[in-house]
Amino acid sequence: MKLDIALLAGDGIGPEVIDQAVKVCDAIATKYKHEISWKPALTGAAAIDAVGEPYPDETHEVCASADAVLFGAIGHPRFDNDPSAKVRPEQGLLKMRQKLGLFANVRPTFTFPSLIDKSPLKRERIEGTDLIILRELTGGVYFGERGRKDDGNTAFDTMTYTRAEIQRLAKKGFEMAMNRSKRLCCVDKANVLESSRLWRETVQAMEKDYPEVEVSYEFVDAVAMRLVQWPKGYDVIITENLFGDILTDEASVISGSMGLMPSASVGEKTKLYEPIHGSYPQAAGKDIANPLATVLSAAMLFEDFGLQQEADDIRRVVNKSLAEGIVTEDLSEDAKAYKTSEVGDWLAKNV
Amino acid sequence: MKLDIALLAGDGIGPEVIDQAVKVCDAIATKYKHEISWKPALTGAAAIDAVGEPYPDETHEVCASADAVLFGAIGHPRFDNDPSAKVRPEQGLLKMRQKLGLFANVRPTFTFPSLIDKSPLKRERIEGTDLIILRELTGGVYFGERGRKDDGNTAFDTMTYTRAEIQRLAKKGFEMAMNRSKRLCCVDKANVLESSRLWRETVQAMEKDYPEVEVSYEFVDAVAMRLVQWPKGYDVIITENLFGDILTDEASVISGSMGLMPSASVGEKTKLYEPIHGSYPQAAGKDIANPLATVLSAAMLFEDFGLQQEADDIRRVVNKSLAEGIVTEDLSEDAKAYKTSEVGDWLAKNV
Ligand SMILES: CC(C)[C@H](C(=O)O)[C@@H](O)C(=O)O
Ligand SMILES: CC(C)[C@H](C(=O)O)[C@@H](O)C(=O)O
Repeated sequence: MKLDIALLAGDGIGPEVIDQAVKVCDAIATKYKHEISWKPALTGAAAIDAVGEPYPDETHEVCASADAVLFGAIGHPRFDNDPSAKVRPEQGLLKMRQKLGLFANVRPTFTFPSLIDKSPLKRERIEGTDLIILRELTGGVYFGERGRKDDGNTAFDTMTYTRAEIQRLAKKGFEMAMNRSKRLCCVDKANVLESSRLWRETVQAMEKDYPEVEVSYEFVDAVAMRLVQWPKGYDVIITENLFGDILTDEASVISGSMGLMPSASVGEKTKLYEPIHGSYPQAAGKDIANPLATVLSAAMLFEDFGLQQEADDIRRVVNKSLAEGIVTEDLSEDAKAYKTSEVGDWLAKNV
Repeated sequence: MKLDIALLAGDGIGPEVIDQAVKVCDAIATKYKHEISWKPALTGAAAIDAVGEPYPDETHEVCASADAVLFGAIGHPRFDNDPSAKVRPEQGLLKMRQKLGLFANVRPTFTFPSLIDKSPLKRERIEGTDLIILRELTGGVYFGERGRKDDGNTAFDTMTYTRAEIQRLAKKGFEMAMNRSKRLCCVDKANVLESSRLWRETVQAMEKDYPEVEVSYEFVDAVAMRLVQWPKGYDVIITENLFGDILTDEASVISGSMGLMPSASVGEKTKLYEPIHGSYPQAAGKDIANPLATVLSAAMLFEDFGLQQEADDIRRVVNKSLAEGIVTEDLSEDAKAYKTSEVGDWLAKNV
């Protein structure tokens, strides 16, 4: 297969973890005789510094014409504590999601046999966890009107959803549930929010089209609790953008390290793959960041192009690296910690 | 001391857990020669059924003229899956918070020596946890404008904050931090939300008035993760209404049972005490609900009226009941489970 992949390294540890995923993908391509042509492009703080914009038009062109996008991370502390900053790296991420129409973010949560005891949660609570949070990605309070009033003394953000936006996300959720254990949980705050009531009413109306799927409705506060209490209680979760942001980060704790959780963002056409961890600026440039979430995101990419064996190969070699302790410092405990680049080299050599 | 306490039992398990707290308070009153006069009033679904309104004016009168309010829980499933319901129990709770001016909800999270191994989290992660989440309670998306457009096909909610609302909450947070370990964490989503940027800028401007307090700013998604990963990293957390709702429920997992976590809601005048758990309708009327969160909320009440010994007494007897296994089924595991009323009787007898 011939694949054009846009490569958006972004900020912080983004470039380092992306480098390792590229090594692994290239090794897979060699092994299975695929041709990957990488198309690097600027995004985030890096793009602001270079051209004054976090998601420049040229970058969008590269992404829109590629078969898929591999993305690192975005964000820089220089902007976080400056509430008056006009341009922010995150705007690039949001603009990219919107312009590429990436309305569904697929975030699987699972455990790794060799890491179960590294989780802050007890083994019996998490062993066998296998859930997917499907987060709506181009609506809600991320994209509603926002601003200031009263000389800047009042600030507002608007959480908005249309029935159509909810339907297309929920459809993916129902389909996913059909391919899995046929359980779908819709997470909202319908006891308070009008947008949540639209979510609930829309999903309820779709139930009849998927009679085999058992649907439950839970409030986001209760789920924030149950997700760590008994994650095996969930299979496919669908939720709006902000709740999905919070719950997926929380769920990443289950596996023991944020550095492990991959994600795919899909829409009508383009697909984008990214680790769920952020740009982790404190670690940038130190060659210590865990590249596995990005490498596992690349596995999701291969899978989505029907290259199941390639995906399985990547997951197998990742599991092997974990079992043999070829890991970065977030996972090494008292044993030797490997560098980001060393882990990447080892994985590429072993696929 | 003479205390008038409004008693709002509410829905579901509310009446049962409230009954036990009353027993314990009465026992304390007898022991220390206080005079408590209880003023029961209707709220929630119970009030809707009786007078068509979840927070009737008469109830407000009772609360406003009392020294404090002891509150059970509100909510009924009959309304949850009916997105078209015009009157909802939760509206009563929100109206009550607003009309009584309860702008700050104090939710401590701590562990109980005898329960540490019941937590889904490992002992070494949580032992010694002692944090307080100070949740803003009368602003944000709970109280902004909401509604439908486009023939009901678009729904919106507005998250609004004024500088003054943030200041009065943050002031409490700084003061609390001064009385504790002088660490304050402001939790927001300032990389996306304008209201969060106003939070950050307002709290930043207040730092100079509390030079001894070390302030940090973290994003809500990251905190959702760190809170279970390393709760001991936090001391006082301040945050807006919705984030506080989610994070406090999540934090309740640490102690091993939602049935244990008390809270106080404070404002300019009235103070209200309530368990953080909900109305738990599945358990209603079965005499199985855990009353300890409500009993511990009453301890917070005594403490706020300067009755430290009374509060300590309640906490001591609660710890004793836990150590001796006089507990409801959520905590009993293989041992005998006591009824809600039996736990209440035991506590009252032992204070
Ligand atoms: C960086 C930030 C804007 C982003 C989000 O909130 O969506 C990130 O947390 C994520 O989850 O991808
Ligand atoms: C019942 C509900 C409206 C309420 C809230 O969201 O504030 C509850 O979850 C709470 O935390 O007190």
